[in-house]
Amino acid sequence: MTPNTNYANLKDSYLFYNIAQKTKKYLEEHPGTKLLRMGIGDVSLPLCDAVIKKLHEAVDDQSEKGSFHGYMPECGADFLREAIAEYYGKRGVKLSSDEVFVSSGASDELGDILDLFGRDKTVMIMEPAYPAYVDANVMAGNTIIHIPSGMENDFLPSPDDSLNPDVIYICSPNNPTGAVFGKEALKEWVDYANKKDAVIIFDAAYEAFIEDNSLPHSIFEIDGARACAIEICSLSKTAGFTGTRCGYTVIPSELTRGGMNLNSMWVRNRTTKTNGISYILQKGASAVFTDEGQKQIHRNIDVYKENARMLMRALDELGIYYTGGHNAPYIWMKCPDGCDSWTFFDKLLNEIQVVGTPGEGFGKCGDGYFRFSTFSSPEDTMEAASRLVKLLKK
Amino acid sequence: MTPNTNYANLKDSYLFYNIAQKTKKYLEEHPGTKLLRMGIGDVSLPLCDAVIKKLHEAVDDQSEKGSFHGYMPECGADFLREAIAEYYGKRGVKLSSDEVFVSSGASDELGDILDLFGRDKTVMIMEPAYPAYVDANVMAGNTIIHIPSGMENDFLPSPDDSLNPDVIYICSPNNPTGAVFGKEALKEWVDYANKKDAVIIFDAAYEAFIEDNSLPHSIFEIDGARACAIEICSLSKTAGFTGTRCGYTVIPSELTRGGMNLNSMWVRNRTTKTNGISYILQKGASAVFTDEGQKQIHRNIDVYKENARMLMRALDELGIYYTGGHNAPYIWMKCPDGCDSWTFFDKLLNEIQVVGTPGEGFGKCGDGYFRFSTFSSPEDTMEAASRLVKLLKK
Repeated sequence: MTPNTNYANLKDSYLFYNIAQKTKKYLEEHPGTKLLRMGIGDVSLPLCDAVIKKLHEAVDDQSEKGSFHGYMPECGADFLREAIAEYYGKRGVKLSSDEVFVSSGASDELGDILDLFGRDKTVMIMEPAYPAYVDANVMAGNTIIHIPSGMENDFLPSPDDSLNPDVIYICSPNNPTGAVFGKEALKEWVDYANKKDAVIIFDAAYEAFIEDNSLPHSIFEIDGARACAIEICSLSKTAGFTGTRCGYTVIPSELTRGGMNLNSMWVRNRTTKTNGISYILQKGASAVFTDEGQKQIHRNIDVYKENARMLMRALDELGIYYTGGHNAPYIWMKCPDGCDSWTFFDKLLNEIQVVGTPGEGFGKCGDGYFRFSTFSSPEDTMEAASRLVKLLKK
Repeated sequence: MTPNTNYANLKDSYLFYNIAQKTKKYLEEHPGTKLLRMGIGDVSLPLCDAVIKKLHEAVDDQSEKGSFHGYMPECGADFLREAIAEYYGKRGVKLSSDEVFVSSGASDELGDILDLFGRDKTVMIMEPAYPAYVDANVMAGNTIIHIPSGMENDFLPSPDDSLNPDVIYICSPNNPTGAVFGKEALKEWVDYANKKDAVIIFDAAYEAFIEDNSLPHSIFEIDGARACAIEICSLSKTAGFTGTRCGYTVIPSELTRGGMNLNSMWVRNRTTKTNGISYILQKGASAVFTDEGQKQIHRNIDVYKENARMLMRALDELGIYYTGGHNAPYIWMKCPDGCDSWTFFDKLLNEIQVVGTPGEGFGKCGDGYFRFSTFSSPEDTMEAASRLVKLLKK
């Protein structure tokens, strides 16, 4: 028996491994040094009180016969699906709760969702991109159209009519660039997908970081999106759920392709391939969507946003081009003096003990750029920003 | 774009829908009647104290900066992988912790694992079977060889050398029949898989219900299994995790097919397609493998086993053929007088208000049989057993 030979086509993912090796070596050669870690995509603030309270209540429910919950509905508990639909409603996006599917998180869902599309699909991925988009499609044996972006379009590419994708990935606010599609630019993609009979997978994991009220949080704020888009969302960055796990996916009831309804297909997928998401986690997640929960998570997001402002002030002072920061937890800067991204990584590590992420790890067109995450502590971020200015000021 | 057209080949799963419709109708026509539900595969006893305590501690960890856990390792936390490897060790099965993968549960994993095998595989499924085995493979476009079993082999079929499967599903203790493969019979399957270059997916979800010490809990108790088997396990029935969710999968480090190592492939799959299992759930699950946790979960299992004994006594008194009950939480009985399984369902519902599961729902060869679950309350089970005797005694 030959297993899935597509796995042999995967490139080894050296990005985070290389970063780990380089920092390890540095620390061995400079014992006792404190590194300022601006590379991590993981949050540093704990879960908010409203979530903690609900999690404890849910654990208590599981300890008593009368309140114990066994198998949950595979597509999500009604209480959470309804809370999420209401959350969309507050921004004017009308969803029925059975268009909302509770998931273990966006990364899990981004892998699983490809099952809907079957074989031999042509998939369009805008780069620089989250590496798992590419890898999941290589594993599925799909053909990938890489769409590079750059300073010329502020990392927000436009559709190309000569191409014919079946599936289009859009991540906005973007990881790693922090760039966000405006409503008009996103409408172009929606119209393109409908014209090409394609489906957009819209990764909205960072929507809660949007400050500018004119920018769309959801693709379903755009006319025509209900006929072409699936939205995948996460509580990881929004509410600090990276290690707690819960997310959600929206598939409109009228989304059909080839005469098949994708919402019904996903119901069938979930009822076959899962037994639902933990009652405890769903209860905890439901607290995020209460008024109190929203207030509390935004207090945490504000801490990260202040980190972003420190880094942006440094880059502004240095006159360095960057995207992100305002409406996203990432800042994507141009490496100075035409430096490539790994050389810049080494320079920051060796000279100012700051660790970031080389842009080349997110696709070839990312070389020459560098990603800062804003999820570190305010103290470390302030120190990193100040060292950056000292190092690069001419 | 045409989505996954294999979904169009799925048969509608009417089993649990039909049961729900029939019981609903009965209750509408007989308001106030109490039905004795012996059909459910869900547990009724709450989580044990050791698990509850650890879950609360883990929630507290998530509330403080110093103890907060972000992204977990994608293949599972070391503390849980090691605890599970030790659990196998106590039965003489030596595993390295990196052969253990923590999952969201067996049903999630049974769906995901097919990604390892790629396209156009020939999959052998022994029937009667858990319906998701068939459905997940229909979705993947695989060819299914249905292997019927029956009274002639006590629902434990032997390998057929004329067939050439790529993947073989074995569920032992079995759902729905409760039949368990002995070591010699399982060795035949292991040798067959190795000879045929096939991979066995061994579903061990009910291993904790085995009483007979001569029966294997794990396929890795059998010589040769490390060269051909993946074992998928669950805490759902063992520790009441149906609504809490956590399970594990074992892929031996030397399992290779077509020159590709399946353990390494699964590491790549998990690191691409998941961000790990919730810290809270993994902490809770770790309590199951402590001495105190094992004592507590076996107290619950003993309650279900007493239920099984009540039902078995009734069937023995009636002289009815059945499998299961001794080493499994299911009892699979022959419907009396050549009755088909839906007619017998109606008879029990209408005449003694007992709800079970018609065997036909688990595959054609299940017709004429009926499944009782032992997860109901002792009171309801005792009453159901007594009514069964009264109804069928000649």
